[in-house]
Amino acid sequence: MITLYHHPLCPHSRFVRLLLGEYGITPELIEEKTYERRREFLILDPAGQTPVLVEQGGIVVPGAGPIAEYFDETRGLALGRHRLLPEDPASRVEVRRLCDWFHQKFFHEVTNWLVTEKVYKRYMPRERGGGAPEMELVRAARTNIRTHMRYIGYLAGGRKWLAGEQLSHADLAAAAQLSCVDFLGDVPWEENETAKLWYARVKSRPAFRSLLADRLPGLSPTAVYADLDF
Amino acid sequence: MITLYHHPLCPHSRFVRLLLGEYGITPELIEEKTYERRREFLILDPAGQTPVLVEQGGIVVPGAGPIAEYFDETRGLALGRHRLLPEDPASRVEVRRLCDWFHQKFFHEVTNWLVTEKVYKRYMPRERGGGAPEMELVRAARTNIRTHMRYIGYLAGGRKWLAGEQLSHADLAAAAQLSCVDFLGDVPWEENETAKLWYARVKSRPAFRSLLADRLPGLSPTAVYADLDF
Repeated sequence: MITLYHHPLCPHSRFVRLLLGEYGITPELIEEKTYERRREFLILDPAGQTPVLVEQGGIVVPGAGPIAEYFDETRGLALGRHRLLPEDPASRVEVRRLCDWFHQKFFHEVTNWLVTEKVYKRYMPRERGGGAPEMELVRAARTNIRTHMRYIGYLAGGRKWLAGEQLSHADLAAAAQLSCVDFLGDVPWEENETAKLWYARVKSRPAFRSLLADRLPGLSPTAVYADLDF
Repeated sequence: MITLYHHPLCPHSRFVRLLLGEYGITPELIEEKTYERRREFLILDPAGQTPVLVEQGGIVVPGAGPIAEYFDETRGLALGRHRLLPEDPASRVEVRRLCDWFHQKFFHEVTNWLVTEKVYKRYMPRERGGGAPEMELVRAARTNIRTHMRYIGYLAGGRKWLAGEQLSHADLAAAAQLSCVDFLGDVPWEENETAKLWYARVKSRPAFRSLLADRLPGLSPTAVYADLDF
């Protein structure tokens, strides 16, 4: 059994759930509120961030990037022509460039602000940064996401999937970020039709199902969140 | 010829310079001020961040992580037992975990604040965020680095190098961050003797030499910066 320490609105955790879904693996999910800085979790991973995956046999793999590389190295070949990291070095560069784009750039410009301000700050004690959302950051995120939607549309307009002709880590990285933002109702779907059609294709994959069933106490996703014809 | 778009105080660029040094490669260095958002640079890499490496033959490889993986995939075996990413999956996880630690956690908690507040803001026009440093952020960075020094000391105390018995990407990632902070005189070398001894070993490698010769207009490094017996 594979165990995944995650949070439902951590996009990097969502990326790993999508990744495991593509490998046909159902992990045991343990929800971790990283702001609680739980001792047992910090022993597992001193960075104290989700996601952390514990492999059968006990290898601890923290972080979206290392987890994706680890699965490609240990199980990638078994996916055959559906391998999520292509064979040739130049195509691998493109997949990893886009993973960085979504895991880091999109995260810091959009998702992190929305999730922190609109959700985490509700549950965090005041001395750890909890309180009312800073609406200036929420507005900045809502502006920034428009550029990203156009970039996704540009990529999906010229290729079958974001990094090329095959579904790859890049599509899962982008979809993971977008699905968090969509949960909060902040994706401007009208911004780019090509981006929307690409997302509809990713969203209809079986790997996506467990994400669409996510609920948080006291927080419901928007109506279109689980709708495959949004 | 390999070309590297970099900035002298961008730690991720420094990581790539150390990496290339270990491969025995001297790149053509082009200094890029990313805050100028130069059109030709944005065409090369739409994320607009250093480092960006252009391989002989024209492949563009942006970002410290993708560059390190690309070199391991295309030239790693040629390093033989000095390969910077070990062979077995569990050891690779450890190297990549620590690369994320330094490239991201150390960067966001320490280096980025120091370099942005003390250096970049001097050169940036006011409408792009230039101006006087926010001393609160500088002080936060100076506090945060102490935890990192102790963590480096803890790692180097139990292993020959940070991720194990071999020099790896992890050592270069940590040294790249520290060397930027050291340029600005903000490394508390008295905090941890084991960390200091580890850094002295990395600093005396031939790959480090070009970094120690770095100068910026109107900004001199501190006296210990280029001293191998600091």
